[in-house]
Amino acid sequence: MKEFELIDTFFKAGSYQRKDVVLGIGDDCAIADVPSGQSLVVTTDTLVSGVHFFADAPPEAIAHKAVAVNLSDLASMGAEPAWLSLSLSLPDADEAWVAAFSKALHALSEYYSIQLIGGDTVRGPLSVTITAHGFVPQGQALCRHNAKPGDLIYVTGSLGDAAAGLAILRGQLKTTQNSEDFLVNRLHYPTPRLLAGTAVRRIATAGIDISDGLLADLQHVLSSSGCGAQLHLEQLPLSVAMRESVPANKAYDFALAGGDDYELLFTVSADKRTNLEINLANFNVEATCIGQMTGKDGKIELRLGDEPYSLDVKGYEHFS
Amino acid sequence: MKEFELIDTFFKAGSYQRKDVVLGIGDDCAIADVPSGQSLVVTTDTLVSGVHFFADAPPEAIAHKAVAVNLSDLASMGAEPAWLSLSLSLPDADEAWVAAFSKALHALSEYYSIQLIGGDTVRGPLSVTITAHGFVPQGQALCRHNAKPGDLIYVTGSLGDAAAGLAILRGQLKTTQNSEDFLVNRLHYPTPRLLAGTAVRRIATAGIDISDGLLADLQHVLSSSGCGAQLHLEQLPLSVAMRESVPANKAYDFALAGGDDYELLFTVSADKRTNLEINLANFNVEATCIGQMTGKDGKIELRLGDEPYSLDVKGYEHFS
Repeated sequence: MKEFELIDTFFKAGSYQRKDVVLGIGDDCAIADVPSGQSLVVTTDTLVSGVHFFADAPPEAIAHKAVAVNLSDLASMGAEPAWLSLSLSLPDADEAWVAAFSKALHALSEYYSIQLIGGDTVRGPLSVTITAHGFVPQGQALCRHNAKPGDLIYVTGSLGDAAAGLAILRGQLKTTQNSEDFLVNRLHYPTPRLLAGTAVRRIATAGIDISDGLLADLQHVLSSSGCGAQLHLEQLPLSVAMRESVPANKAYDFALAGGDDYELLFTVSADKRTNLEINLANFNVEATCIGQMTGKDGKIELRLGDEPYSLDVKGYEHFS
Repeated sequence: MKEFELIDTFFKAGSYQRKDVVLGIGDDCAIADVPSGQSLVVTTDTLVSGVHFFADAPPEAIAHKAVAVNLSDLASMGAEPAWLSLSLSLPDADEAWVAAFSKALHALSEYYSIQLIGGDTVRGPLSVTITAHGFVPQGQALCRHNAKPGDLIYVTGSLGDAAAGLAILRGQLKTTQNSEDFLVNRLHYPTPRLLAGTAVRRIATAGIDISDGLLADLQHVLSSSGCGAQLHLEQLPLSVAMRESVPANKAYDFALAGGDDYELLFTVSADKRTNLEINLANFNVEATCIGQMTGKDGKIELRLGDEPYSLDVKGYEHFS
């Protein structure tokens, strides 16, 4: 396993350095301090080659996705990211691959001011597990279980782009080069909505990130909160690329059932709407109201204008 | 991936519940509080089927080893364990396997008063990644880099048992049934030396757990501390099973170069020896002085009685 120890050297230096890290990579454990008044927020996500990404995906894209999906989980709780632990399983000690992967990881650590504090490098089938740590002021975390009937439902950014990007890669969708680039980029380089999470955490009642698709993830909020929901399809935020690439009903399908968007969904009491909109504007965060929580426990009602709408797909295959 | 969501239910309930966990499994992240005055200590270890354990190993043994190797890292820093995150990669949704694995994991969480706070379950080749979290009073962590020439070198328990156990499984060593059972058990069910870590953390100058073998791990301390070491082989703690199974020189080889012991090695200033021995007795922790740090940077000198000793193996293959 000597070569794997050499591989470790790629991760030892190069990460962003935080003052709250007492001891970083190089001992049996890392040591770090959580600021007083803050709770620790922890999440773990594993990406497996051939399941969550294409086996020949560039190492930079794999690093980006592994970091982004974890930070998206932190964002959904309203947490600020702080530290990463990485476990990397590699079929062989491919130094060029690891050099590119670690360089991308270190660049992301700079961008998000987070520090890689430790991990493990082992021989095995290609997979990446990241445990991300963040902070949230005690009592302010956004959970799934506090939404109430009547709460407004918001989502950040635009929905369905990643699913459309996957359809393009699979040869199921063709559009203009610009739109293809945009949609595939949204699949490969999702953006964790960290600013949105911190902007709304004191106002919103519940939150989740949309990784499995709007309907699937909204369903988690409904189950946890004991509510139903009504969505207005004409209010779903769709990107220009989406609008110019597919007809409206196809765009709704992508937005409702497609995964890998990593936008945030959050709920807010109707009487806090102005308060929320002011906060969103202050933080320059784009979010759209797409419906309202109802008392119909576990049920999602779709409406297009004044009419009920039926989704004609059962859910897309997706990476997640 | 529906079946993998069902698999998740095995982990949702059954873990030991801690008061410092604000939100456990079931949301995007876990939330937990670190006690004031304590630093967070974090470690990650991955075990891959066929690399770190036999593919047909019982799920209980895999769970035990995955938890133990992580807790051993916490022990080596003098930390108390608190929370685990688990990422489990499974080739298929084998419910019986997961039921047995999760039951063993929950039993370990009870035994060590630690809580499984989250993780991920994915389809992929069999592997287990655990990130373990613990606490240590600020400034009291045992690191690798503070040993000084003249410091005494101690190890807990007995050395080489796991390597002898592996030799038995490989048909390279035969001994009595009792000794075989003992040695193989030491390989499959290592004991993290948590009590030893907390007993010595205010007295010892440096510490590490012995996972790669005494010489290899002592070398890490030497590199980090800029010291050398002299070891007295006749002082190496050997189990009764080891003594009755192999001649002395073979036992030394196992103890020096065999991995997977998960005993602790720590160093202590010679003038703190009595202080240390009192503490070990108070905590009922068994540890043996096996040598002393020297000024010969990076060099390990082996002595048997008054004579220099040469190790006639280059290092065993081992799981780790």
